[in-house]
Amino acid sequence: MASFRSCASFRSCHLPLPLLSKSKMASTTGETLAAAEPIADGRTEEVEEEQVVNPWEVSAKGGKIDYDKLVDKFGCQRLDESLIQRFERITGRRAHVFLRRGLFFAHRDLSDILDAYERGEKFYLYTGRGPSSESLHLGHLVPFMFTKYLQDVFKVPLVIQLTDDEKCMWKGLSVEESERLARENAKDIIACGFDVERTFIFADFSYMSPPIYKNIVRIANCVTGNKIVGIFGLTLEDYGGKFFFPYIQAAPSFPSSFPHIFSGKYSKLRCLIPCAIDQDPYFRMTRDVAPRLSYHKPALIESKFFPALQGESGKMSASDPNSAIYVTDSLKDIKNKVNRYAFSGGQDTIEKQRKYGANLEVDVPVKYLNFFLDDDAELLSIKEKYGSGAMLTGEVKARLIEVLSEIVERHQRARAAVTEETVDAFMAVRPLPRMFG
Amino acid sequence: MASFRSCASFRSCHLPLPLLSKSKMASTTGETLAAAEPIADGRTEEVEEEQVVNPWEVSAKGGKIDYDKLVDKFGCQRLDESLIQRFERITGRRAHVFLRRGLFFAHRDLSDILDAYERGEKFYLYTGRGPSSESLHLGHLVPFMFTKYLQDVFKVPLVIQLTDDEKCMWKGLSVEESERLARENAKDIIACGFDVERTFIFADFSYMSPPIYKNIVRIANCVTGNKIVGIFGLTLEDYGGKFFFPYIQAAPSFPSSFPHIFSGKYSKLRCLIPCAIDQDPYFRMTRDVAPRLSYHKPALIESKFFPALQGESGKMSASDPNSAIYVTDSLKDIKNKVNRYAFSGGQDTIEKQRKYGANLEVDVPVKYLNFFLDDDAELLSIKEKYGSGAMLTGEVKARLIEVLSEIVERHQRARAAVTEETVDAFMAVRPLPRMFG
Repeated sequence: MASFRSCASFRSCHLPLPLLSKSKMASTTGETLAAAEPIADGRTEEVEEEQVVNPWEVSAKGGKIDYDKLVDKFGCQRLDESLIQRFERITGRRAHVFLRRGLFFAHRDLSDILDAYERGEKFYLYTGRGPSSESLHLGHLVPFMFTKYLQDVFKVPLVIQLTDDEKCMWKGLSVEESERLARENAKDIIACGFDVERTFIFADFSYMSPPIYKNIVRIANCVTGNKIVGIFGLTLEDYGGKFFFPYIQAAPSFPSSFPHIFSGKYSKLRCLIPCAIDQDPYFRMTRDVAPRLSYHKPALIESKFFPALQGESGKMSASDPNSAIYVTDSLKDIKNKVNRYAFSGGQDTIEKQRKYGANLEVDVPVKYLNFFLDDDAELLSIKEKYGSGAMLTGEVKARLIEVLSEIVERHQRARAAVTEETVDAFMAVRPLPRMFG
Repeated sequence: MASFRSCASFRSCHLPLPLLSKSKMASTTGETLAAAEPIADGRTEEVEEEQVVNPWEVSAKGGKIDYDKLVDKFGCQRLDESLIQRFERITGRRAHVFLRRGLFFAHRDLSDILDAYERGEKFYLYTGRGPSSESLHLGHLVPFMFTKYLQDVFKVPLVIQLTDDEKCMWKGLSVEESERLARENAKDIIACGFDVERTFIFADFSYMSPPIYKNIVRIANCVTGNKIVGIFGLTLEDYGGKFFFPYIQAAPSFPSSFPHIFSGKYSKLRCLIPCAIDQDPYFRMTRDVAPRLSYHKPALIESKFFPALQGESGKMSASDPNSAIYVTDSLKDIKNKVNRYAFSGGQDTIEKQRKYGANLEVDVPVKYLNFFLDDDAELLSIKEKYGSGAMLTGEVKARLIEVLSEIVERHQRARAAVTEETVDAFMAVRPLPRMFG
């Protein structure tokens, strides 16, 4: 329930894609895009929006993140149509729906990865999750679904970091509870369909060992306390582990952290990190350090945040399970949540809907279909009919319920098949014999 | 050469007992006992002395540490005659020369350890070293000689931490060089005579593993950045690892950091730490944390600093190997260093010496004999004769040369017998089957 809790105190909030860490800190300064100036006559709506995006806080004054500003502020690159086309040409595969519909919208050096791939060079994938919640919602699964697609397309090894130590440091969870959650979350991640012969899942508490620790210290030796405070908005009121954790999240970007997988000719392998944009600060830091340690800068492919059922400016609260579809939801839950809580851009009455059509910009069912309905033609048709008034909200929601139910049912079946032995197999410290196979 | 280098910039300096860490930081505030007030008329000599003692800096304005003030400032206890007598009564052993001559002069809860020992309860010893120098001087060996004595007396297990990670963080040594030095230093430590069946030596880089890492995070969750800055005098200009290292030095105080040694009924074992007084800040922090993690506060037995050959107020420099006796020194080196560099409290001429006698308070040969000549009667006799003028400096130095040569020769023989296999045996992660035997 981390992202819920973390959003409770915000004026408006999204369901972030909680790739790695999502806990709310007492005092973050974060990336403030524009200071909100109070205007004397009270026209606060006209004040330039302020938004804060960092690994612990995602908020925007008007409720809606301005991703263009974020890309400019962070200094990453837009993932434009020509790069997507190049991706398709080089891989010979259709771009994933998350890519062609703009959910993954920004990157750093993705074109370098494609260049290298075209030359026949190898790379590996790295993603992760801060295991602070027992059951995951669809937003939590998005990065893993996308990473699985990338693994299938490129046939590359993947390391998945579960930052149980971070959750212990930030959320005050006990070591044991953090470890338990990491293992439970691993089951949901495995259920996304990863190939055990190409995937190493590790939790920090159980994987902490000389190879990764040495890299952590090497990285720490390149980044001052000032820089950590500046990047992550910490203060000296914070507990000490928080100053150290960024190095721990950085270390898996370097292949020598996994000598059982990447030895010999793979010890300087390139790394591509699919993650939500709020994780960019970690990897900006990592990219600064990489050349000093003679590694490639890790490349990134970055996503937007997943909207709450109540919409991008809907207020979320820790005690409101109705703001998201959970992978543990029953079909009845899904139907109920979509019908009752998914914010509609349709008109109040059938008559007005027929006459004016829906506002697709704010309509959550359309946003969700945009991410989960693979059929371009059908999506276009729904948007046209719904926008023009030929379709009603109830019909669009009914289609969304079908789509989500199928995803959740498939996940639940796959999750049920994941045994403790399966988890042990993914988390075993071992070579990956078929990693580029 | 760490303690030399670290002293290079000080107005006056001792050869510290470099138990754990001794590197000089750019900006330490440390424990300032009394601010030196400049006096308008220039009577600076009359200004109350300022002394700074922390793990990275040991200095006093007048050149001589005021240990009474230090004990009061740190809040530890004096190790008085009655406690030494109790130690002898309970253990049935003569107090070690370092104890009865006041080199180990302060403690925290040593009486609790003695109480527990008297009740038949067990404890373990923990000490360590920051391996920043290739060859050690006698001051480096003092804590290990004393720890070996304690191990023999109490028949208890011992863990020795080599903080190679710290040296990498503070001194900019590479990981590989730090590891190499740790292993070289381990050989000298082993040569002090530790029992492999009761002793586990570990270097942080190679031992970093889930049990100790979990304790490190638990400790980090109890200590804010402000506290670290306050205790250790860090600033945000420092590299990030420095903020984390105190937890790493704290963790071996808790037996669960070594599950291969202390499992089951030993998982809450008491811990006694022999160390130099400059390490007190680490363990003050650890003692604050211990009850929150349901452990005993570690007890401490703390030593003064070992004087340079040039005396307690002698200036030391990185480039001056003549300020200490090294365990690699030849007998000729020892003779030369003592005769040429050991500061004498004797008079300038034989005639004046015969008439006035030596000033024993500043005489380095007497100070060294005080620590290394076990025979109380002979020491007393030397002091009396030398102080009264019946003995000359040359005679005292000759006796010191004999004593030191014997120690260094014995060490060199023992060191030569330590093979790589011996080091492997001490550093193997294993149970200690005879640890209380």
